[in-house]
Amino acid sequence: MAEADGVRRVRVDLADRAYDVVVGNGVLDDEGVFSSVLGAAAVMVVTNETVGPLYLARLLTSLGERRVATHTLPDGEEHKTLETFGRVLDALAEARMHRDAVVVALGGGVVGDLAGFAAACYQRGIDVVQVPTTLLAQVDAAVGGKTAVNHPAGKNLIGAFHQPRAVIADVGTLATLADREYRAGLAEVAKYGIGLDREFFDWLETHAQELAERDADALVRAVCVCCEAKARVVEQDERESGRRALLNLGHTFGHAFEAATGYGAWLHGEAVSAGTVIAARLSTRLGLMRAEEADRVERLLSRFGLPVAPPDVAPARILELMAMDKKVLSGKLRLVLLRAIGQAFVTDGCGAEDILAVLEGAAAG
Amino acid sequence: MAEADGVRRVRVDLADRAYDVVVGNGVLDDEGVFSSVLGAAAVMVVTNETVGPLYLARLLTSLGERRVATHTLPDGEEHKTLETFGRVLDALAEARMHRDAVVVALGGGVVGDLAGFAAACYQRGIDVVQVPTTLLAQVDAAVGGKTAVNHPAGKNLIGAFHQPRAVIADVGTLATLADREYRAGLAEVAKYGIGLDREFFDWLETHAQELAERDADALVRAVCVCCEAKARVVEQDERESGRRALLNLGHTFGHAFEAATGYGAWLHGEAVSAGTVIAARLSTRLGLMRAEEADRVERLLSRFGLPVAPPDVAPARILELMAMDKKVLSGKLRLVLLRAIGQAFVTDGCGAEDILAVLEGAAAG
Repeated sequence: MAEADGVRRVRVDLADRAYDVVVGNGVLDDEGVFSSVLGAAAVMVVTNETVGPLYLARLLTSLGERRVATHTLPDGEEHKTLETFGRVLDALAEARMHRDAVVVALGGGVVGDLAGFAAACYQRGIDVVQVPTTLLAQVDAAVGGKTAVNHPAGKNLIGAFHQPRAVIADVGTLATLADREYRAGLAEVAKYGIGLDREFFDWLETHAQELAERDADALVRAVCVCCEAKARVVEQDERESGRRALLNLGHTFGHAFEAATGYGAWLHGEAVSAGTVIAARLSTRLGLMRAEEADRVERLLSRFGLPVAPPDVAPARILELMAMDKKVLSGKLRLVLLRAIGQAFVTDGCGAEDILAVLEGAAAG
Repeated sequence: MAEADGVRRVRVDLADRAYDVVVGNGVLDDEGVFSSVLGAAAVMVVTNETVGPLYLARLLTSLGERRVATHTLPDGEEHKTLETFGRVLDALAEARMHRDAVVVALGGGVVGDLAGFAAACYQRGIDVVQVPTTLLAQVDAAVGGKTAVNHPAGKNLIGAFHQPRAVIADVGTLATLADREYRAGLAEVAKYGIGLDREFFDWLETHAQELAERDADALVRAVCVCCEAKARVVEQDERESGRRALLNLGHTFGHAFEAATGYGAWLHGEAVSAGTVIAARLSTRLGLMRAEEADRVERLLSRFGLPVAPPDVAPARILELMAMDKKVLSGKLRLVLLRAIGQAFVTDGCGAEDILAVLEGAAAG
C-alpha cells in the first residue's frame, strides 16, 4: 500500500491477473490515474441514470482524448437481469468495440455486476475497470471479480468470475449517497472487522463517529483496510471453495431476511447487519464465543444505525429460505460462525434447532 | 494417448483444468466411461430436436442411476442466441441444479457452444462434458473451451472460455450425419494437416477414400490426431493471443464467404475449405510457398467433395467483410498463411492488392 498525493493503492496479487485498487478523495478527477490504467484503449462507460448525472462528466474529463462511448442503465436491482445484460452487449457491438477496448463501470454494485459480466462475455472477455460510487461496492463488490445478474430462481445465479484491470474508488463520491444506503455499506465495512480483523474492529469502535459523518480520511483508511482484507482472501481462494466463504459472514441469514421481507424492503447491508448479529448470537449459544463479544458486535452495528434484529417473519420460514439459498451444498446448511471477533470460520455442523432458537430469542428480545 | 478396448484418450494438459478427450467407436454406450468422468453428479443433458431422437436414449442409459434432467434445443445456427442461452439457464434453475451438477452437451457445435456457455455462467460456472456428434465438433469445437452465442453484429461475439471436464467423441454417431455436413467436417480435419502437420497431411492423402466412406478405424485415428494437435495448441495458448490463431487457417476468408453468401447458404466447413485454398494461393503469390504445395491442398479438399473456389461475389465486397471480422486488431488484417504444408503462420503484413488479385484469379479460374 503506497502513498502519493493522498492516493493509496492496494495490490490484488493474482498471478497473471494482478491489479491495483486505487483509493483516494477526489481520484475521479485524476487523469493520471486513469491514463496509467487505460493507456490509449477505447472505453465503453456503463453507468446508470442516477449516478450518470452526478459523476459522468467528471469521469469523461479524466478519460481524456481517447474514443469513448457511454451506456446508461436504469437504476435498481430489478434491472440486474439477463435482458439488461443483453443491452450492454448490444451497446458494445454497436459502438464496434474491439478486444482491446475496456469497459468502465461507474456506479454501485448493480452497475459493476452487470457491466463486469458483459465485459466477461463480450468477445469472450474484454477488460473492465470498476469505478464504484457506493460504500458497499467500494469495500466489497468491486474487488474480487465476481460479476452476475439475477434470475427469478435466485440472486446472482448467472455470472462469471472476471477480475477487473483496476478498481478506482473515490470516497468523495460517497458524499451524495442517501443516508440509508451509506449506512448499509457500513455493515460490510464492519463485517471485515467482525469476521477477520480484531484490530480493525477496535479501530471501528473508536472511529464510528467519523465514519457515520463520512469523514474522508477515515473513509480512505476504512476502504483501504477492507480492500486489503478482501484482496488477501481472494488471493488465497479466487473461486470461493474455501476461505472466500468467510466473507459471507451474516449473508446466509441476510439473504433469507431479504427474501422473507420481499426484495427491496431491506437493503442488502441492513439484512447482513441483522444476519451478522444472529450469527454472533448463534456462535455464543453453541459455546463458541463469549456473550460479551456478541454484545460488542451488536453495539457497533447499532451505532451505525443498522438493524440488529431479524424481520418479523416466522423463524421456520427463515430456515426454509436459508435451505433454498445457493450456498447449500448437497443438502447441508453451511454457515459462517465466530470463535471470537476477527475469527470467523465455516461450518456445516449446525442443527436446525439451534438456528430456530436463536431466531426466536432475537425476535422476542 | 493410451488404448484400451478400442477406446483412446487424448490428454489436454491445462494445469488445474486438465481433461481427457475420449475417442472410440460406440463409446456412447460405455457406462464405465461416463461414470469415470461424472462420478455421482446430477446431470443436465442439453441436446437438440435432431440429435435427441437419435442418441438421447442411449446416452441416458449410459448415465445410469444418477439424477438427470434434459433440455432440448431447436436445431440450427439461427438459434445460437442470447435468448436460447437464457432458456438453458432457466432449465438449469428449474431443475434446481447445484454447483456440483454437470451439463452434458449432446450434439454438434451449436449445442456444444450454447450448453458450454450456459455452464460457464450458471452459478458463475459449473462443469460441462462435451459429447460431440458431428465431425466438425469432434475435431474442433468440443476441444479447447471456446463457448459462445451469436449476436446480430457478429458470430460468436458473446461467450466465454470454459474448458470441459471431458470430451467423449463417439465416431459411430457420424454415421447418421448428412453427407454434406460430414464433408464439411473433413475440411477441418484437413486443416490440421495443411496448417500444422505435414505427416498427417500425407496420411490424409493416402486415406482419403476410407475417410470419405466414414470408415470407423480411419475416423478414430483422424479424430485423435486432430484432438492431439488442438490440445497441444490450446495448451500453449489457451486464450488465442498467439499460436491458437493458427487454427484459424482459412477462417478469415471463410467467414467472409459465409457472410457474403448469407449465413446458411454455405456450411462453415465448406467456406473454410475454399478459404484455405485462397490462403494457400495467396501464400504462393507472395513467394512464401511453392505452387505445387497449393495444388496438393486444393486436390485433397476437392477429393473430399468440398468447394475450392470462392463464391460468386465481388472481391472488393469480400475484402470489406474481412475487414469487419472480429479478428481484425487495431485496423490491421491478420491472416494465417503457409510457408509449406504443415507450416502455417500469422501475419498482418499482407496488402489488399494481393488479396484482391488472388480472389479475382480464383474466381476466374
